[in-house]
Amino acid sequence: MKPSIVFIGLGSMGRAMARRLVEAGHPLQVYNRTRRRAEELAAAGVAVLDHPSDLLAAGGDSIVVFTMLADDAAVEQVTFGEHGFAARLPPGSVHVSCSTISVELSRRLAEAHTRAGQGFLAAPVLGRPEAASAGKLFILAAGEPAVLERCQPLLAVLGQRTFPLGAEPPLANTAKLACNFLIAAMIENLAEAIALTAKSGLAPHAFVDLLTASIFDAPAYKTYGKLIADDSFAPAGFKLPLGLKDLRLVLRAADDSLVTMPTASLVHEHMVAAMAQGQQDLDWSSLARIVARNSGLPRGAGKP
Amino acid sequence: MKPSIVFIGLGSMGRAMARRLVEAGHPLQVYNRTRRRAEELAAAGVAVLDHPSDLLAAGGDSIVVFTMLADDAAVEQVTFGEHGFAARLPPGSVHVSCSTISVELSRRLAEAHTRAGQGFLAAPVLGRPEAASAGKLFILAAGEPAVLERCQPLLAVLGQRTFPLGAEPPLANTAKLACNFLIAAMIENLAEAIALTAKSGLAPHAFVDLLTASIFDAPAYKTYGKLIADDSFAPAGFKLPLGLKDLRLVLRAADDSLVTMPTASLVHEHMVAAMAQGQQDLDWSSLARIVARNSGLPRGAGKP
Amino acid sequence: MKPSIVFIGLGSMGRAMARRLVEAGHPLQVYNRTRRRAEELAAAGVAVLDHPSDLLAAGGDSIVVFTMLADDAAVEQVTFGEHGFAARLPPGSVHVSCSTISVELSRRLAEAHTRAGQGFLAAPVLGRPEAASAGKLFILAAGEPAVLERCQPLLAVLGQRTFPLGAEPPLANTAKLACNFLIAAMIENLAEAIALTAKSGLAPHAFVDLLTASIFDAPAYKTYGKLIADDSFAPAGFKLPLGLKDLRLVLRAADDSLVTMPTASLVHEHMVAAMAQGQQDLDWSSLARIVARNSGLPRGAGKP
Amino acid sequence: MKPSIVFIGLGSMGRAMARRLVEAGHPLQVYNRTRRRAEELAAAGVAVLDHPSDLLAAGGDSIVVFTMLADDAAVEQVTFGEHGFAARLPPGSVHVSCSTISVELSRRLAEAHTRAGQGFLAAPVLGRPEAASAGKLFILAAGEPAVLERCQPLLAVLGQRTFPLGAEPPLANTAKLACNFLIAAMIENLAEAIALTAKSGLAPHAFVDLLTASIFDAPAYKTYGKLIADDSFAPAGFKLPLGLKDLRLVLRAADDSLVTMPTASLVHEHMVAAMAQGQQDLDWSSLARIVARNSGLPRGAGKP
Repeated sequence: MKPSIVFIGLGSMGRAMARRLVEAGHPLQVYNRTRRRAEELAAAGVAVLDHPSDLLAAGGDSIVVFTMLADDAAVEQVTFGEHGFAARLPPGSVHVSCSTISVELSRRLAEAHTRAGQGFLAAPVLGRPEAASAGKLFILAAGEPAVLERCQPLLAVLGQRTFPLGAEPPLANTAKLACNFLIAAMIENLAEAIALTAKSGLAPHAFVDLLTASIFDAPAYKTYGKLIADDSFAPAGFKLPLGLKDLRLVLRAADDSLVTMPTASLVHEHMVAAMAQGQQDLDWSSLARIVARNSGLPRGAGKP
Repeated sequence: MKPSIVFIGLGSMGRAMARRLVEAGHPLQVYNRTRRRAEELAAAGVAVLDHPSDLLAAGGDSIVVFTMLADDAAVEQVTFGEHGFAARLPPGSVHVSCSTISVELSRRLAEAHTRAGQGFLAAPVLGRPEAASAGKLFILAAGEPAVLERCQPLLAVLGQRTFPLGAEPPLANTAKLACNFLIAAMIENLAEAIALTAKSGLAPHAFVDLLTASIFDAPAYKTYGKLIADDSFAPAGFKLPLGLKDLRLVLRAADDSLVTMPTASLVHEHMVAAMAQGQQDLDWSSLARIVARNSGLPRGAGKP
Repeated sequence: MKPSIVFIGLGSMGRAMARRLVEAGHPLQVYNRTRRRAEELAAAGVAVLDHPSDLLAAGGDSIVVFTMLADDAAVEQVTFGEHGFAARLPPGSVHVSCSTISVELSRRLAEAHTRAGQGFLAAPVLGRPEAASAGKLFILAAGEPAVLERCQPLLAVLGQRTFPLGAEPPLANTAKLACNFLIAAMIENLAEAIALTAKSGLAPHAFVDLLTASIFDAPAYKTYGKLIADDSFAPAGFKLPLGLKDLRLVLRAADDSLVTMPTASLVHEHMVAAMAQGQQDLDWSSLARIVARNSGLPRGAGKP
Repeated sequence: MKPSIVFIGLGSMGRAMARRLVEAGHPLQVYNRTRRRAEELAAAGVAVLDHPSDLLAAGGDSIVVFTMLADDAAVEQVTFGEHGFAARLPPGSVHVSCSTISVELSRRLAEAHTRAGQGFLAAPVLGRPEAASAGKLFILAAGEPAVLERCQPLLAVLGQRTFPLGAEPPLANTAKLACNFLIAAMIENLAEAIALTAKSGLAPHAFVDLLTASIFDAPAYKTYGKLIADDSFAPAGFKLPLGLKDLRLVLRAADDSLVTMPTASLVHEHMVAAMAQGQQDLDWSSLARIVARNSGLPRGAGKP
């Protein structure tokens, strides 16, 4: 029998993921702070909740609750807040946390759910909304093996591959933060390399084409190389404030573990500078404008 | 008729490239500071020179001289030094410079050869010795279009693709430095990300596998991710002092153009620290040990 | 009539300050988590409290409560915790917060006390315990002018000068954090300069003597220059974990205000590295050992 | 008998120093590239040379040649160039090099003069033109003890104190570079601290006054704190390109010795950014504008 599923958080990622589950035949209860977005999803078998705490177990059965939210505060609110679901979740149920949250919150979630006899799986994902719609996400999963095994059929609906990272949920969150750091650092690196070659007289697109046709033919280099060469950061695929939030989480995780990450500090610095320039509605790769401007390329490296 | 070719510099890269040219049927004159290495190449149609200046044009014909050497000083020596070839090169000949040299030397070479009625093509390459042996290099080429056109059949023997970067030779050298910077920066990024995840309890190989099977499936991430996870940097594929030399050239090019490259400074700093720890015989990716040690992982992130 | 004073927090700084107030003839109630330290202070007119909430107003009069504690958590605990004093403080009383705390906590304290009809003065201090004993502290004070005016006679007992920084309490905390940043950055600078000159062959003491007898004859340069040249960091004047805490507060304040402080990030990085090396019992200036070691001076720049 | 003195380089520093020597009764031969400036100095006992090589020894006596020039190239030119003085300097003469030059040039000068039987004293100075006029410079001196002893009466005319730094001339140049680094780093630190406090709402002058009346009452903090608070960088006391030159020498000396100086890299980066913004005619402390702008304070921290 298909488990009863609750999906909380219907931003562009959450909506695509929830839709996959519906399409795979799972009855779904959904919650979103802005109710209208939840109602757009309404379809056969989808119930819209007024509050996370309104979840209904069919016949006392256990439930799988997915959360896919913007930040720690939102996850805490829906889980432990006034109308949070944790207090109403039947024992044996599982919370699958897909958001990019702090290592520290992951630890607290794991402890609280364990105390309540509930399962907890940290399952942050790699991929953009298009990948989510196509079920092509990569899923970083950590939690009790039995819990992971039970959730794997659902994860298989959402992603092309699940990477099991052990029994400690925070490990998946650390790995996810490390991945986001690597993307942000790559953006910084590209911005610096393009500033150097552009100011020397090489067209940014020529340089990016050469790079991505030779040593760096990964999609991430192509995507961000083009954005920087185009100097075109709107509409944002991933907004600067979200990227800055992630870098803050990276730095906090590093600090808590006494790990030095000077590149993370540098990327954070450039993101802060970009925010201070009013770039909060642009893509996070618009930090390239800070690098360009510091080199006297005022309109971005792409237009010297 | 095949042009007469001189190949100067028979390190691991130069030897593989020279052999490709021989195998393609080009008669070759070769020079190497350590003559023994040149003699190992001896075969039908290969003449070993005592000095770069000993090159012989068949019937006053023009010549193509390739140089593939370790640094600026070596290129200057064989070109303009006491027994340098430039003074003996017939007009209409071409110097194809494949070494990773400074932008500034490239400019001086271009000027000197032009003054002497000789052609100059900057043609630094991307790829390791195995790629050179297989003719799979990527070649960044800049120089007069007519010169490039004339050399392209030879470049096609050496590389899988030539990227034409315009008429100004220094542009190819700038692009090459920018590429090496991006590899070095990627190493630094990986080192930091692995330090964070390793100290948090995730096995380095698990993290590298996840990365390179998902968002960063480029060969460079696989190669260096494995080296760092293995904490194994000998024998060196590319020695630390050579990497440090390249970063110095990057920083000098940036400084000359008033471009800011804080990540390049950071990577340079870690390479200097690695040299100060006596890692001069290790691979340049051994800078990861500096990152690991600063985070209290004394034997490298790979063995916490 | 002298106001009734409560002094909370009797570390080395707090004890020296409390003693000054006693000696100036002020009746004092004191509280310290470790009660023994409070009892050592017992003298005519000093009452030891079991809890911060035990404070007694003489005849309903208003009270001045000084807090001088290690961090945000301690200040929150004594103020708002289970046995916190805030709930028992008569209207018209004043909380004078001398600790180095976050800008954000200062803001919350100001709001809470104002709501309760109580005054709040942020009054962090510059100076070491010896300066406190001698009444030679510098006091950075911000709060309502009337509150500052009322407290100034007490501040005059503790410090040689009060710098009024306006009506908004968080300003004094920001200024204090900026001062601590400047001291930490100076330590980093000295460490780098001494590493350069020491490795070149100049005795560290000769360099420090020259510096402090010429362009930098400020006491801070003398004190820390000597510690680094001696490579002697125990017993600690100011322990590394406290310094690290301050840098974290600096970085958080900068982040909240979208200010970039790359040097603060760098100093923080070196402090983290020092913690990861097990230097938690040494003086914060022992970050110089990280700088020295990265330059291949394993026992500190002082002993090359 | 007073030795015959040649003074080469009559910029604002050199002129003040030469005048001190004239006033002390020393007959002087002077040379300056722009002859007019030399003629302004003309007075009883001052001879203006057409070329450095025109120096005349009175009766074959030995000579003391002071050089006070802008950079390595200028010092090399007057010493070893076409009309350089070295070839004409009688044995037993001494070259006193007061310029801020590279460690490496200092080494070559020492070797060349020693080979020629001439003495060499590295004697860079700390202080601005006003200090030079008043004979209040600090002089960092390194060279053979006998040479130093012989020059000391002249140095005593120029400075308030000579710091003897040993027999190896490059040590004095290293120490001088380390001092200039410390001043530049202090400027960076002040810029960051002022950006933080200014953006938080504290008037820059209030913060600088507090700093320099308490923990940092050194003249350097006062001078540069005021410039930054005023956001007023012209006319320049020390122009940005000269500061940038010094930072380049610092980084080169550090690199040659395998010493890591991340703060020096950072200051260099901000100076490059300032140059790229067209600040080449402003004081070097105008790097504060880069810090301010990165924090969204467009007209400098002083005017938020």
